Amino acid sequence: MGSVKDAHPLRLRLAHNLRALRKARGLSQEGLANLSGLHYTYIGGIERGERNLSVDNIGRLAEALGLDAVDLLHPALQNES
Amino acid sequence: MGSVKDAHPLRLRLAHNLRALRKARGLSQEGLANLSGLHYTYIGGIERGERNLSVDNIGRLAEALGLDAVDLLHPALQNES
Repeated sequence: MGSVKDAHPLRLRLAHNLRALRKARGLSQEGLANLSGLHYTYIGGIERGERNLSVDNIGRLAEALGLDAVDLLHPALQNES
Repeated sequence: MGSVKDAHPLRLRLAHNLRALRKARGLSQEGLANLSGLHYTYIGGIERGERNLSVDNIGRLAEALGLDAVDLLHPALQNES
């Protein structure tokens, strides 16, 4: 899947946004796993930038969070806590 | 990589947007291949919704087109020609 070292900056942006948006909903990684059908260890790997996830899984995570995928990839979120 | 039949709707949105934005720049699939470092047959597969591409490759394609990744995933483009 590629290490964090090799990650495109977009992957790290998504990692940051996913964690922020998940927490903003009061969801644990396990909770998001249940909603998205992905494994919670995989979600942890995404949030650490270790997983080069696919567009289908980006879509599943956005759906689980009740967001559009654009929200998960938006650059502005990087400047929020 | 998953067939078109199994594709998340987000994958098909990206497929549509990529083709539209590539053509808007007057680029062939080969031209975008040269700019992005991806193979032109792979780009063809993405544009047909056959390839469940990764976030790193979404980032590479956006960069090659001089766009932000958000532009490649934006829902509004689906209503344009």
